[in-house]
Amino acid sequence: MIQTLIEKIQKTGAPVVVGLDPMLSYVPEQLRKKAFAEYGETLEGAAEAVWQYNKGIVDAVCDLIPAVKPQIAMYEQFGLEGLKVFKKTVDYCKEKGLVVIGDIKRGDIGSTSEAYAAGHLGKVAVGQNAFYGFGEDFVTVNPYLGSDGVKPFIKVCREEKKGIFVLVKTSNPSSGEFQDRLIDGRPLYELVGEKVAEWGSECMGRDYSYVGAVVGATYPEQGRILRGIMPKAFILVPGYGAQGGRGADLTHFFNKDGLGAIINSSRGIIAAYKQEKYASYGEEGYADAARAAVLDMREDIAGALAGKVFPVSG
Amino acid sequence: MIQTLIEKIQKTGAPVVVGLDPMLSYVPEQLRKKAFAEYGETLEGAAEAVWQYNKGIVDAVCDLIPAVKPQIAMYEQFGLEGLKVFKKTVDYCKEKGLVVIGDIKRGDIGSTSEAYAAGHLGKVAVGQNAFYGFGEDFVTVNPYLGSDGVKPFIKVCREEKKGIFVLVKTSNPSSGEFQDRLIDGRPLYELVGEKVAEWGSECMGRDYSYVGAVVGATYPEQGRILRGIMPKAFILVPGYGAQGGRGADLTHFFNKDGLGAIINSSRGIIAAYKQEKYASYGEEGYADAARAAVLDMREDIAGALAGKVFPVSG
Repeated sequence: MIQTLIEKIQKTGAPVVVGLDPMLSYVPEQLRKKAFAEYGETLEGAAEAVWQYNKGIVDAVCDLIPAVKPQIAMYEQFGLEGLKVFKKTVDYCKEKGLVVIGDIKRGDIGSTSEAYAAGHLGKVAVGQNAFYGFGEDFVTVNPYLGSDGVKPFIKVCREEKKGIFVLVKTSNPSSGEFQDRLIDGRPLYELVGEKVAEWGSECMGRDYSYVGAVVGATYPEQGRILRGIMPKAFILVPGYGAQGGRGADLTHFFNKDGLGAIINSSRGIIAAYKQEKYASYGEEGYADAARAAVLDMREDIAGALAGKVFPVSG
Repeated sequence: MIQTLIEKIQKTGAPVVVGLDPMLSYVPEQLRKKAFAEYGETLEGAAEAVWQYNKGIVDAVCDLIPAVKPQIAMYEQFGLEGLKVFKKTVDYCKEKGLVVIGDIKRGDIGSTSEAYAAGHLGKVAVGQNAFYGFGEDFVTVNPYLGSDGVKPFIKVCREEKKGIFVLVKTSNPSSGEFQDRLIDGRPLYELVGEKVAEWGSECMGRDYSYVGAVVGATYPEQGRILRGIMPKAFILVPGYGAQGGRGADLTHFFNKDGLGAIINSSRGIIAAYKQEKYASYGEEGYADAARAAVLDMREDIAGALAGKVFPVSG
């Protein structure tokens, strides 16, 4: 699957992932009204509104991008009805030929991580049969529990040719509270990065590993260091756009081959119509606004990469 | 809710939580056969088998214990059908008067943790209405992202009078890989424990905080230290029984008032019928075996606590 992701990035020229993180407040009024008219102001109504909103965005951008990243929390907030739409969204995006990165940030003791890995990447056995639960292509994994909590995901990745991105240095303001603390003179995130490289070495695609990392666009200097520590890991980079990351900050996350990173934008794309820059599209044109924002993002990143001078060792 | 939990512990004399972590292989054959006959060897069939199994256990032990802890991964592995049973189990346990600790180990950047908190502890707004998604009483939270990722849960706890348990030192063998690393001469889990105490001080019940901690029974010495660092935090202690923790290891987790900890056992209770000790109950008697195992666990803990000599400062 890492090879599929790379091929799709090369084909689209866009190391871009669109974060399908729908807040009800992003959903244009016309879609909300229609869903509420049908299902009432209920969880079913909210889920229907989110589903139609997602569908519009996916239809508008699917030829431009290699991958989407639905954030499961935004669906889980609506309980079972929301999770039905998470599943529908995963299935629909796969039908459209997109790689689906489930942003689930799971991680637990071994036997429990096994269950998460089965439910999201692999299959669960029921008698003589086996079924995919949610069936994403990649998921994000939290490393706080150590190797026990990560290896069950890697095992399933090997069986299913899928992949994970392990949280290393997250994009949020307080990520340094624990992640930046110095251990033998080096921040915790570097030690986690070393483990990612170690875990990943057992699980290689052609040039890159099935075991990637999450490093926030908001921490470009840390991105540069981690790029060096984990040369074979693909880096999923959240925090572009709405969280403050800019194209120029991103070059550090890429390798000399122009690969090695995929940049996520959520709000900046899916709620682009709310920005002054794309206001002319109006609420009705939310999907076209998303498309325009993807094109601008692709150009911003390409421009930044074109201007990058890679170090000889890079 | 922390006060409710304490009152239920005092009433039952059992600082015990039963982990409802059903693997299909634990479900007695008669229940599996019945469910598969009705729904086939499908996800629906697996979910029905798990539901009947849970119901039998809850009915057999609900008068003995204050709380249950369903591990959501064990349901998520069966996709949407599994999550329906998670919700049914939460609702059923609440009907039976049990406190429900959702073992979800979520944690993300601020806006995303808000969504998880809304979906699991609080309500989500839909137009003029607001709905509970899963409606647990407590959830477990992963601290790797720092305060940003934890505070949205605390906010909802305050509004809803609910609570969280933050992962501090987990019970699994590799938990030390990152959690034990020394920062200014002290292990990371102590720093996380200090943060738990700090977060919890803003969110107090009568004697204990709504912000508790998870510390594994398998690390009793660390439990002693953390008990001192977080005097007002309730400690949820997994790892008793099947993972190797014993009653005598547990005394460190309690305060002088005999409170401050609640001990989880999952497999050791719900699959007790598979142990030699309870084999005479047979598969048919799995629920009675679970009841016997709860009584034995209560006695083991009470015996250990009766023998404890608390330090003057404890």
